[in-house]
Amino acid sequence: MMIKGYACQEKGGRLEPFEYDPGELAADEVEVEVEFCGICHSDLAMMDNDWEMSSYPFVPGHEAIGKVVAVGNRVSEARMGQRVGVGWQSSSCDRCKNCGVGKESLCLNENEVGQTIVGRNGAWADRVRVQSGWAVPIPDALDPSLAGPLMCAGTTVWSPIRHYGVRPGMETAVLGVGGLGHLAVQFLAKMGTQVTGLSTSRSKEKQTRELGATDFIATKESPEDLKKAAGRFDFMISTVSADVKWDDYIEALSPGGTLVICGIPDGAIQFIPFPLIVGEKSIGGGRAGSPSDTQEMLEFCATHDIAPMCEQFAIEDIDRAVQHVRDGKARYRAVVAL
Amino acid sequence: MMIKGYACQEKGGRLEPFEYDPGELAADEVEVEVEFCGICHSDLAMMDNDWEMSSYPFVPGHEAIGKVVAVGNRVSEARMGQRVGVGWQSSSCDRCKNCGVGKESLCLNENEVGQTIVGRNGAWADRVRVQSGWAVPIPDALDPSLAGPLMCAGTTVWSPIRHYGVRPGMETAVLGVGGLGHLAVQFLAKMGTQVTGLSTSRSKEKQTRELGATDFIATKESPEDLKKAAGRFDFMISTVSADVKWDDYIEALSPGGTLVICGIPDGAIQFIPFPLIVGEKSIGGGRAGSPSDTQEMLEFCATHDIAPMCEQFAIEDIDRAVQHVRDGKARYRAVVAL
Repeated sequence: MMIKGYACQEKGGRLEPFEYDPGELAADEVEVEVEFCGICHSDLAMMDNDWEMSSYPFVPGHEAIGKVVAVGNRVSEARMGQRVGVGWQSSSCDRCKNCGVGKESLCLNENEVGQTIVGRNGAWADRVRVQSGWAVPIPDALDPSLAGPLMCAGTTVWSPIRHYGVRPGMETAVLGVGGLGHLAVQFLAKMGTQVTGLSTSRSKEKQTRELGATDFIATKESPEDLKKAAGRFDFMISTVSADVKWDDYIEALSPGGTLVICGIPDGAIQFIPFPLIVGEKSIGGGRAGSPSDTQEMLEFCATHDIAPMCEQFAIEDIDRAVQHVRDGKARYRAVVAL
Repeated sequence: MMIKGYACQEKGGRLEPFEYDPGELAADEVEVEVEFCGICHSDLAMMDNDWEMSSYPFVPGHEAIGKVVAVGNRVSEARMGQRVGVGWQSSSCDRCKNCGVGKESLCLNENEVGQTIVGRNGAWADRVRVQSGWAVPIPDALDPSLAGPLMCAGTTVWSPIRHYGVRPGMETAVLGVGGLGHLAVQFLAKMGTQVTGLSTSRSKEKQTRELGATDFIATKESPEDLKKAAGRFDFMISTVSADVKWDDYIEALSPGGTLVICGIPDGAIQFIPFPLIVGEKSIGGGRAGSPSDTQEMLEFCATHDIAPMCEQFAIEDIDRAVQHVRDGKARYRAVVAL
């Protein structure tokens, strides 16, 4: 049966109705009937071939929520009908030493790592397929119309928060309050840390506080406030893609503190090493986690009533929705209904 | 009673016999009769005022082994006669939240952090004083004539190995096989990791393997070997002060791996962030630890028969010994006998 979706036909091109024959379902795959799918900046980057790994035409979309409607030969029939989420990664080797300990996002057999919209078609379509393990069960308590962005934006900040040892009571900071950042603020607040939001201006202060932050620093409006925060934060997470003065953020870390980079800066990261060394501070990379990380996050969201703030569009309006995201107007995430 | 030692009289000056009156012993201090003391590059940096915090004249020396010969009013008499080691740090506040959990090396009350040779006199002298907790007991099994360099070079590599979660079975690498590196190789080998030594040439390969490394990469002689190591090391520790191409070392980390910087590079650290982010890798600063870290290291050395390789000089030859270290000829550490 043909899969019907919207494809980008060429670099930077518009989205147009598109059908493709997915062939036989692989033994380790599930097919998901898509209900909702988020629009992520990575979809835009792939549409624009920013990372030089796009092949056209392709169907974007990698923050999908839907129901399992078909399973491969080696997948349990019990998964039929289950509501699941699909994110950026679509497969892993399942036998390397990382996959063996639940670190499938760091799978060592790179040529067996699939990405939902790289060299294949994603979820701005009626159906999408992924390796069974990468279709993560969605708790009943979550609103499926809002859960999509958790599958990429959510796990991208959740996983480093877990992997880099954030503990209740810590002073934490979120640099950039957008699609990723507004989730990081909620996660960190509900984990019992004291969260400060950092954004260039005060325009997002009120909403950031409503999401759980107890303090806010406007880094461009009041740069002196960042200076005053020297030595303060045990954990900082950067979700911005701008090049910032990294020394200032290392300075803001407490002794032993960690700065995690999730947003991808345009240029090189550069800093004076001495403060890092004497303060035993570190800078780490953060990325979307393994299915077990994502599942833990989904359960946490269900328990603590956490959800992305989403604006919903019909799939027929996908071009307008994409432009809304391109313009930086989404507060804080856009979702299309299939 | 006057303390007799050797002082540096001016920036870059020779060491000359020097006496000073230490005044009354503070209530929380011990006085140590020095038996042996190492010569560290930090002594040279302080003699040369490289860090612009030297005051002259001052007695260098901060890798001391000796016996407690006097205790302050609030220190137990039971410490009298105990053999102890003294390192770079000489005091901490003992009441901040870091000191309260055994992280005195990250004491938050900076103006109460004492450093053995900053604004005071060190251990190239017959006696030296430090806050009681910073005089760390030396196990009987350790040869006191060799133990000195453990108090600075040793704890500087031991502490990050412990704090950044090195585990048996990991693939580890030591960048720079000198005073710090030759100890890191021994620690990591005896912890059950598979150690690779990295040095610019092959001149230190044989000795590095004798210290426990199972592989060796000559980074300048055979740069292709470093390229081949892409994705290999779970933990790397850099003990060099040279500016290297950090991207190459991040590349050599396995997914999830950590690179710790202990040597202080001259310039800024710079790298392309993408590999750090997608590989969930991190770069951390490493430094000498707390008394509890150092004590754990000393016990580990006693258990596993680990010792620095030292060349011994008489204190009267201190100028010649310092020049030997300046010339980079010490294999791998120089110690003076008092």
